[in-house]
Amino acid sequence: MRVGVLLSGRGSNLQALLDAGAASWKVALAVSNVPGAPGLARAEAAGVPVLTVPHRDFADRASFEDALDAALRAADVGLVVLAGFMRVLGPEFVARWRDRLVNIHPSLLPSFRGLDTHRRALEAGVRWHGCTVHFVRAELDAGPIILQAAVPVRPDDTEETLAARVLAREHRVLPMAVGWIAESRVKVENERVVGVASDRPPVNPSQ
Amino acid sequence: MRVGVLLSGRGSNLQALLDAGAASWKVALAVSNVPGAPGLARAEAAGVPVLTVPHRDFADRASFEDALDAALRAADVGLVVLAGFMRVLGPEFVARWRDRLVNIHPSLLPSFRGLDTHRRALEAGVRWHGCTVHFVRAELDAGPIILQAAVPVRPDDTEETLAARVLAREHRVLPMAVGWIAESRVKVENERVVGVASDRPPVNPSQ
Repeated sequence: MRVGVLLSGRGSNLQALLDAGAASWKVALAVSNVPGAPGLARAEAAGVPVLTVPHRDFADRASFEDALDAALRAADVGLVVLAGFMRVLGPEFVARWRDRLVNIHPSLLPSFRGLDTHRRALEAGVRWHGCTVHFVRAELDAGPIILQAAVPVRPDDTEETLAARVLAREHRVLPMAVGWIAESRVKVENERVVGVASDRPPVNPSQ
Repeated sequence: MRVGVLLSGRGSNLQALLDAGAASWKVALAVSNVPGAPGLARAEAAGVPVLTVPHRDFADRASFEDALDAALRAADVGLVVLAGFMRVLGPEFVARWRDRLVNIHPSLLPSFRGLDTHRRALEAGVRWHGCTVHFVRAELDAGPIILQAAVPVRPDDTEETLAARVLAREHRVLPMAVGWIAESRVKVENERVVGVASDRPPVNPSQ
């Protein structure tokens, strides 16, 4: 399966995908909406085609998303991964890629949708935090959950230390989820993920 | 520290408190708002004074809560634990017992406030679920978090199997939280729990 990765920044989750590799899938294209995003250099270093589609160059969201869509189709992509992609995708794009579009969100959804999840988790005083890989729906940070990893929150955590602990798990669960999808181990039924993938244990915080 | 327990049903969390015992605290009173609640028999069997304060016998919530408050004060209670108490307490009662009133809620708050948490967790397809011990505030299922335990959700879980897995953790974390409070290891600062308690590791799902 050919995987397209959309990003806006450093691309550490893209790097995790590049490092993971697998017989069943590979990163075939990396697209940034931000010119010069460091993530693009990572893809180039790995010999992966890169593309910049600057949202500011487009008259409206629809035409921006048409360009994204065309690029992904031209690269014969079967799965799109949002890896730190900081634009909200409209319902049309989401519908076109339904169940072939995944996002990784830095919280145990449904807690802490949206931005600044680590700060908000610390403010809420939760003892468990984590990350979620899910299929994308038009509603922000919603959609069938493929995988979640839980991490403990430590008393001396700052936003930075907590983010780093979660990010380390993101780098493990995102390639895992992509692999499950590439191997057709994931099915969406009644807006829930079922199938072989769910037989795998969730990532254990003690690991 | 003398602990008062409010309940409405079977009282399995009361039983966990009765079983846990400790040098620093004991259950001094069990109060049910439901006549004949099985939890009362558990307290009686353990030699703990019981009281029924049927909310239906009172003209309004304020007078019901005045009766509760009077009973707890008469028993010289220093901490009130809501253990399956199915009445929402009003802001006056909550304010009177501020930081001396804890609740155990069967979810990883802030996810799944309110009722039917296990069904809703299954419907949401979360991979991690759990329970939360927190100080009570006027807002439902909010307030500073003392302790949370995370449990994995298994692909073949039903509401019942998931509830049983969470309940087993509730029985562990509730006495733990009560012990921390009794030993003054818990402090609330800026609506977050700080202090020695938070140095203890969260309950690990692998245990």
